[in-house]
Amino acid sequence: MDETQFVVGVDVGGQTSKLGVVDARGEVLAQSVIRTDTFGTDADAYISALAEAIKKIIAEADKEGQIRGVGVGAPNGNYYTGAIAFAPNLAWAANGSVDFAKMLSKKLGGLPVSLTNDANAAAVGEMTYGVARGMKNFIMITLGTGVGSGIVVNGQVVYGHDGFAGELGHTNVVRYNGRTCGCGKQGCLEAYCSAIGVAKTAREWLESSKEESILRDVVDITSKDVYEAAKAGDALAIRVFEYTGMLLGRSFADFVAFSAPEAIVLFGGLARSKEFLYEPILNSMNENLLPIWKGKVKILFSQLKESDAAILGASALAWEL
Amino acid sequence: MDETQFVVGVDVGGQTSKLGVVDARGEVLAQSVIRTDTFGTDADAYISALAEAIKKIIAEADKEGQIRGVGVGAPNGNYYTGAIAFAPNLAWAANGSVDFAKMLSKKLGGLPVSLTNDANAAAVGEMTYGVARGMKNFIMITLGTGVGSGIVVNGQVVYGHDGFAGELGHTNVVRYNGRTCGCGKQGCLEAYCSAIGVAKTAREWLESSKEESILRDVVDITSKDVYEAAKAGDALAIRVFEYTGMLLGRSFADFVAFSAPEAIVLFGGLARSKEFLYEPILNSMNENLLPIWKGKVKILFSQLKESDAAILGASALAWEL
Repeated sequence: MDETQFVVGVDVGGQTSKLGVVDARGEVLAQSVIRTDTFGTDADAYISALAEAIKKIIAEADKEGQIRGVGVGAPNGNYYTGAIAFAPNLAWAANGSVDFAKMLSKKLGGLPVSLTNDANAAAVGEMTYGVARGMKNFIMITLGTGVGSGIVVNGQVVYGHDGFAGELGHTNVVRYNGRTCGCGKQGCLEAYCSAIGVAKTAREWLESSKEESILRDVVDITSKDVYEAAKAGDALAIRVFEYTGMLLGRSFADFVAFSAPEAIVLFGGLARSKEFLYEPILNSMNENLLPIWKGKVKILFSQLKESDAAILGASALAWEL
Repeated sequence: MDETQFVVGVDVGGQTSKLGVVDARGEVLAQSVIRTDTFGTDADAYISALAEAIKKIIAEADKEGQIRGVGVGAPNGNYYTGAIAFAPNLAWAANGSVDFAKMLSKKLGGLPVSLTNDANAAAVGEMTYGVARGMKNFIMITLGTGVGSGIVVNGQVVYGHDGFAGELGHTNVVRYNGRTCGCGKQGCLEAYCSAIGVAKTAREWLESSKEESILRDVVDITSKDVYEAAKAGDALAIRVFEYTGMLLGRSFADFVAFSAPEAIVLFGGLARSKEFLYEPILNSMNENLLPIWKGKVKILFSQLKESDAAILGASALAWEL
């Protein structure tokens, strides 16, 4: 472990960006948050603000001259090109491609910047600091507003031919009459198993039945409401998670057939509903696996400290610089 | 290119095993065929016969002392363990695990032996000598009696945690009321898009309709019969290939979301029906791809000389020894 070098991790989210100075042990020495959504379509203004915030936390941690590089996780971030392109939730990168890594590096006096999408960053974070430590083959699934994924094969993130590998949220899980996904396709995993998908399932089931449920009193149901209802013993809410877990499990069985991972690691807001998701996922996955894998693939839930996880994931990228 | 070193490639099939001495350019200098299925459950007897045949072709090519190693492609061959286990089509490895690589190496005086499954061997062959030369990211799909796959990421075959990665024939392609596959699961790609699957589709369609077709005169329809009928302009036979291609294409779209390959390469008996499969596959894949990949992923058909392809694929493994 190099005690004299440090990295910066940046997690670019739709509303806020979290950043921190991290040591080789994964301790966050200084951190900060800036808004992502107050710069309109002006990418340069956002990146300038980010560069200033980075300089500030480096100074705060008293590590000037000891920073090896900056790792950034961002929606639609491309590892090969360093660009963020057509990211619907980032106004300044929604309608074109932004040379993010290059621009940020320039504003930081040439400090190397490595960029990838948020799910890949999370995978690197888990492998470096989390439950996947020591694993060479695993799949990270992020269950948030959408469903993202980062695939690790032989100890390396799979970027593919063009840097966009690992879009497992947009593989098919319901072929017949599948829900329309935000991407325009039908029946994608994300349309069912994201936070938005879970809320939608609950709303659909409430509409199509007369079953009693405390969710009937909730306006604009979110996945958090469904979780609270399940915790309160609401039968319909519990079944929503069983259904979500069943769908995740059958998709996971196909993912296992691809890369034969040691584990599938779940991360993100929805993964906090572990108590209702774990068994349905595991049972459904094992039902759909080939005999050689039945009972052998672990389903793990990230245990990284919520507030640090995103920063750690992104920062871990910078160690490879 | 090393002009003084040579390798041996062995393709273990259910009925026959093909073997050859290969140079670094991919020229087969001497080759031979032995039966695989005349040894009952006696793995040792088969491996002894194979070792003798290997020694014979090495002598025939006059390359004693210049052989770097032996590469073997076999059903259910495991790269990590060197074992063939529970391979339904190999009587001597159907009900247990055979330490194939170790046993063969011993009978060849310690010559290194590398083993993998047949589809992975084909992928290595395409990458070394075929249409995937120079590609770092592609997926090999073998369309034979079954549907096999070999996945290459970053220039390396994906073996996964346990050596069994790349069972894409057993990912789901029909969720609702899917055909039962030989593996016991329902709706697997292999149940529809293998040679057996194609023949089954034709038989089902003939039974469920009164449509005229020259296939009505055929007893025990095979995929070859369907191909001949399609060539003769038979509308039903042509639609069987369109349906098969549609299913392959939608599965391929999900595979692309996993590893973002530059191309998907098709190999095996059924791939000879390229004229009827190519467009349905390409159209269906592009319909189901995320916008970032539409029109960008190639569908290629192996062009390796049929008689050499299997040997070359296996032999290419040995260069890595």
